[in-house]
Amino acid sequence: MTDEQCMRRALELAKQAAARGEVPVGAVLVKDGEIIAEGQNRRETGKNALCHAELEAISGGCKALSGWRLWQCTLYVTLEPCPMCAGAILNARIPRLVYGAKDAKAGSCGSVVDLYALPYNHHPQVEQGLLEAECAEVLRQFFRDLRRHRKAEKTNTD
Amino acid sequence: MTDEQCMRRALELAKQAAARGEVPVGAVLVKDGEIIAEGQNRRETGKNALCHAELEAISGGCKALSGWRLWQCTLYVTLEPCPMCAGAILNARIPRLVYGAKDAKAGSCGSVVDLYALPYNHHPQVEQGLLEAECAEVLRQFFRDLRRHRKAEKTNTD
Repeated sequence: MTDEQCMRRALELAKQAAARGEVPVGAVLVKDGEIIAEGQNRRETGKNALCHAELEAISGGCKALSGWRLWQCTLYVTLEPCPMCAGAILNARIPRLVYGAKDAKAGSCGSVVDLYALPYNHHPQVEQGLLEAECAEVLRQFFRDLRRHRKAEKTNTD
Repeated sequence: MTDEQCMRRALELAKQAAARGEVPVGAVLVKDGEIIAEGQNRRETGKNALCHAELEAISGGCKALSGWRLWQCTLYVTLEPCPMCAGAILNARIPRLVYGAKDAKAGSCGSVVDLYALPYNHHPQVEQGLLEAECAEVLRQFFRDLRRHRKAEKTNTD
């Protein structure tokens, strides 16, 4: 699979999350050109602060490879990882991260901070901007729908 | 339970981890003076990069409270959280963190970086140094034993 095909699959997973009322973020973990694990945001339905797309994919990857080191994997994610997920990428020794849209509020691979420029014991290669417009649009659409829904609810109860 | 009693329980959990061959780190999550979730490092036995003590305690806390916001909880951990765990504390909106020993290599609450001084949307109160000497000693002892064991193995195979 190409980088773009991998990100398109992550986008599909993000849309699945949106359909369940979750902030749409999707991720896939790839080894030797094949997806070995997938993840999508499930914070609300999973009622768990750890249920981010990246953590689901990384945990699935560790299971698939029976070990905590994901040395030969690339993680594709639609949104810039938060500090928890950026840190999990370090802990799993993932060598390459590809992400779509930037996250000005929590992004920790260049936005709020670039964790990978700090002296930790691992330094993933990062590529930003693959299908960025589509990755950002799925988020914009989600929040637009949410606002419209809340406005309609308010009007109905006024 | 007092802060010290909570940290003593985290220390017990760290020692349980050491007994299983894991780097000894333990954590407890406390609400209204009672432990609602516990965690210990299980990276090797769990074969998973996410199996840090803090994540186990936070995940258990979300389950115990049926929600992702741990607004009224304090997390006690024997070692300064790494970026993944420090980020999970942000994501779970934990208002107070108490940790024992500093971690010069990966600590992200003041050592490598202070994530909580950055403009994220949550800023936990942090207290460092409770039972620091004991928390550090359990780690020192673990690595001392590991080196001795490896040296003995090497001598036996020479």
